[in-house]
Amino acid sequence: MFDRSPSDGPLSDRPVLGIDPGLSRCGYGAVARSGARFEAIAYGVLRTDPKAPLPIRLAALEADLEALVAEIGPGAVAVERVLFQVNARTAISVGQASGLALAVAARAGVAVVQYSPNEVKLAVTGDGAADKVAVQTMVTRLLDLPRPPQPPDAADALALALCHSWRARVEREVPPNDPSVPSRLQAAIGAALAKDPR
Amino acid sequence: MFDRSPSDGPLSDRPVLGIDPGLSRCGYGAVARSGARFEAIAYGVLRTDPKAPLPIRLAALEADLEALVAEIGPGAVAVERVLFQVNARTAISVGQASGLALAVAARAGVAVVQYSPNEVKLAVTGDGAADKVAVQTMVTRLLDLPRPPQPPDAADALALALCHSWRARVEREVPPNDPSVPSRLQAAIGAALAKDPR
Repeated sequence: MFDRSPSDGPLSDRPVLGIDPGLSRCGYGAVARSGARFEAIAYGVLRTDPKAPLPIRLAALEADLEALVAEIGPGAVAVERVLFQVNARTAISVGQASGLALAVAARAGVAVVQYSPNEVKLAVTGDGAADKVAVQTMVTRLLDLPRPPQPPDAADALALALCHSWRARVEREVPPNDPSVPSRLQAAIGAALAKDPR
Repeated sequence: MFDRSPSDGPLSDRPVLGIDPGLSRCGYGAVARSGARFEAIAYGVLRTDPKAPLPIRLAALEADLEALVAEIGPGAVAVERVLFQVNARTAISVGQASGLALAVAARAGVAVVQYSPNEVKLAVTGDGAADKVAVQTMVTRLLDLPRPPQPPDAADALALALCHSWRARVEREVPPNDPSVPSRLQAAIGAALAKDPR
């Protein structure tokens, strides 16, 4: 049902599924460890018909998200946090989509984490104010994709999945309650990993 | 599972379920025709634990909404529309809850309609700027309840259900596409019905 990249190499961990919520276009991207690095195992966008009534669109999106989680079987879901400063009409529609994503993951018994757009950009590009092209470029390079993921929502979702995968790895290696490791340092480690030449 | 009023009289139509979405307190109220008037068949609030993680709260709310729709078997669900002018943090949380309500109803195959708070207040009290006490007072009187529904979220949900029940009745009696009946007149008819002494 969902776009998959052609190579499905050996995976050592359950994948992380990133979701960039939206009602017209909801980006998704799943990455999994493959040896020392990460590999994209699925990415794309879920769309709903802008001409359909809102409840029907939300119901369709939720059903698609459930099918996606069932098919990917993620160990964790990373959802982009809805920010307050965007315009309020968009915030409500994106909030509705994000609420569905969070509820679907929780009901499937999967751990869910939210990241702000800046956290994701910092982790993937080293710059919390990076633009969409920079995120697409880094995601393409880090995941060794044949071409930049389109539309940008899919790249954003893959970036979310990478952000969480690195953070989860850092937290396994450094106990999260160690007071000598503040979270800003963990973010910096993530950024450094992102820049690390393969 | 849900609070019901003690009297369960003969019902000529399937009930209308009103939902006042919220994450901490989600009001619900179902009304059904009983002869020439309407009767409350269930009302209360669905609560989620403010100390639980957001995805768990959303998942719990959605499960409760599904159980509510299954138990009430409404012919229509009326959900309060989330407005843009309220503060953005609240709008996102209320938007997430409203998205779940809309999706749950649509997935159950039930017609869903959104009403703004002002439309509901106008229909129930005749004043689009009525306060919560005025809404509680009118709902108590119109539905012949032994005491005002508490908390106000339950009264708001009953008001939503009444608003839609009247509108649906008006639309059955007056074809909605009749250009001689603008929607403002229909609202005025609803308001007049609300003020009609029983």
